[in-house]
Amino acid sequence: MKKFINDPRDVVTDYLTGLEAAHPGVVRFDRDSRILLRAQPARGKVALVAGGGSGCEPLHTGFVGRGMLDAVCPGAIFTSPVPRQIIAATRAADAGAGVVHIVKNFTGEVMNFGIAQEIMAFDGIRAETVLVNDDVTVPDDDDSAGRRGLGATVLVEKIAGAAAERGDDLARVVAIARQVVARARTFSVGLTSCTTPERGRPTYVMAADEMDLGIGISGSPGRDRVPLAPARDVARMLADPVLDDLRPAPGAQLLVMLSGLGGTPESELYLLYGDVASHLRDRGFDPVRALVGNLVTSLDQQGAALTILALDDELTALWDAPVHTQALRWGM
Amino acid sequence: MKKFINDPRDVVTDYLTGLEAAHPGVVRFDRDSRILLRAQPARGKVALVAGGGSGCEPLHTGFVGRGMLDAVCPGAIFTSPVPRQIIAATRAADAGAGVVHIVKNFTGEVMNFGIAQEIMAFDGIRAETVLVNDDVTVPDDDDSAGRRGLGATVLVEKIAGAAAERGDDLARVVAIARQVVARARTFSVGLTSCTTPERGRPTYVMAADEMDLGIGISGSPGRDRVPLAPARDVARMLADPVLDDLRPAPGAQLLVMLSGLGGTPESELYLLYGDVASHLRDRGFDPVRALVGNLVTSLDQQGAALTILALDDELTALWDAPVHTQALRWGM
Repeated sequence: MKKFINDPRDVVTDYLTGLEAAHPGVVRFDRDSRILLRAQPARGKVALVAGGGSGCEPLHTGFVGRGMLDAVCPGAIFTSPVPRQIIAATRAADAGAGVVHIVKNFTGEVMNFGIAQEIMAFDGIRAETVLVNDDVTVPDDDDSAGRRGLGATVLVEKIAGAAAERGDDLARVVAIARQVVARARTFSVGLTSCTTPERGRPTYVMAADEMDLGIGISGSPGRDRVPLAPARDVARMLADPVLDDLRPAPGAQLLVMLSGLGGTPESELYLLYGDVASHLRDRGFDPVRALVGNLVTSLDQQGAALTILALDDELTALWDAPVHTQALRWGM
Repeated sequence: MKKFINDPRDVVTDYLTGLEAAHPGVVRFDRDSRILLRAQPARGKVALVAGGGSGCEPLHTGFVGRGMLDAVCPGAIFTSPVPRQIIAATRAADAGAGVVHIVKNFTGEVMNFGIAQEIMAFDGIRAETVLVNDDVTVPDDDDSAGRRGLGATVLVEKIAGAAAERGDDLARVVAIARQVVARARTFSVGLTSCTTPERGRPTYVMAADEMDLGIGISGSPGRDRVPLAPARDVARMLADPVLDDLRPAPGAQLLVMLSGLGGTPESELYLLYGDVASHLRDRGFDPVRALVGNLVTSLDQQGAALTILALDDELTALWDAPVHTQALRWGM
């Protein structure tokens, strides 16, 4: 294992220490509670809280700041945060206008946010859950735990964050967040396995001529092991399942997010984006906003995840609104 | 080789096509001349032109836009641009107030920019060269080609770009750019080799318990092969040679850039940054600005490069000035 770490057990704490040291005007790391907060807490607005297993950075820690999240409770690597952290983050973020919990649909995350909400109900803190479940890999039926929450989480955090920042009330912020979930889908491809700091070697082995379709964000293998293909074919393999499930209206304006998984360089992501955008246009859609880079990752895994959101005028305006976090920043 | 590419011979063109597709409001790719330009050309200001081997993205292509570069001429992977491209970029960027060529000190780059300037002298285009040579690996004496241009290039492009944008004249922009070069140093460590698309396998082999101190940005090995060390030791190994060469005044305010090499995830870079910042404070310096992420890379190589700039009030103000490029954006 070749990583910039000290003790593998301290990677999350050490990462958050570095993040705060680099951006003291943006985030504050509360070591005792193991939560990350805005450096300047917001007042009188709906608060947004998210959390999940670490190792997916910049999700969620890189999205704390003006225009996005108020507090994040990061778990251990690929492990959900515990209720105590969720409660601490919620209390710290609450500015009197209610709290939105942005929860990715993973069993542990759903359970622990639920337990935290039951405990906090005694304190009179209003927390509404927005469940993100955009992964088209998993069938959306009653027999499974349902679809996993993946890249759409970033879009929910940005767009609902902008709604909260402009002063929308709790019901409206929740409604907008759920609209983003309803209009977004994700499909992913892995080229390698990731290596967790605790284990120190790749989680699984893939042949040099294989890739893995339908992976998630916890380093687990995907649904289909298929032959490695040129970027223009990969673009179709990612975009078609998303479009066929999402079914945007002909000519629809799309926000296209292409996230690397941590180990794939930006130049490859932009190359792949070019093929995705070209294929979307061939299918009659209009990719009007693009976000390309490492956004939802699995440590050092090589690969990419395509998330598509069918925009409307309000979602576009909220997307374009100013934001100042470590990982997303514009207009301020 | 596992990469998102089509034909290895087309990687640069395909990447630039994707970059333009993602950010049509920021950059325009001129396919015929193989240069990247601002989407909206600036008028009446000093123009900044840079170029170098591809594979180091976002350098330089990700830094085209308001507040930074006007035009970039990207060569093939790890290969300098040819004079014809440099001339095309210079002519396209020239807005009547003179042109600055930001040239990294590599033999081919220096030679080809020189040839281009000789040819353009007949046209009456004023182009001044700013040579970047911040790599402390290489001794700064008369017997070598001198120090390589590495991460300081990003700082020159941002700070001189802000000076040009506010209307400084050619002599002043050049003077500020040279001040940045004089006050910045870089030292790098590689954990793996990169894999070029043409070759398809790692350029060299490193043992699992080794790292490579003093690498550059063209995939070549470093100066010292040493045992892999914990992040807090790596932080010292990077920072001390930089500080010992740069010799900032006690208590100096520093801009600290920690760039990944393409394959190292952001969470590791922030973790390492935390240890660097802590060591800088222990040595009596004040890291007041941080830039952490993949900025000057070597394709998919794992590793990091530390660049330190000794700030003054003017350089800080120019650093903080608004910028809108693919890779750096704030204030607009």
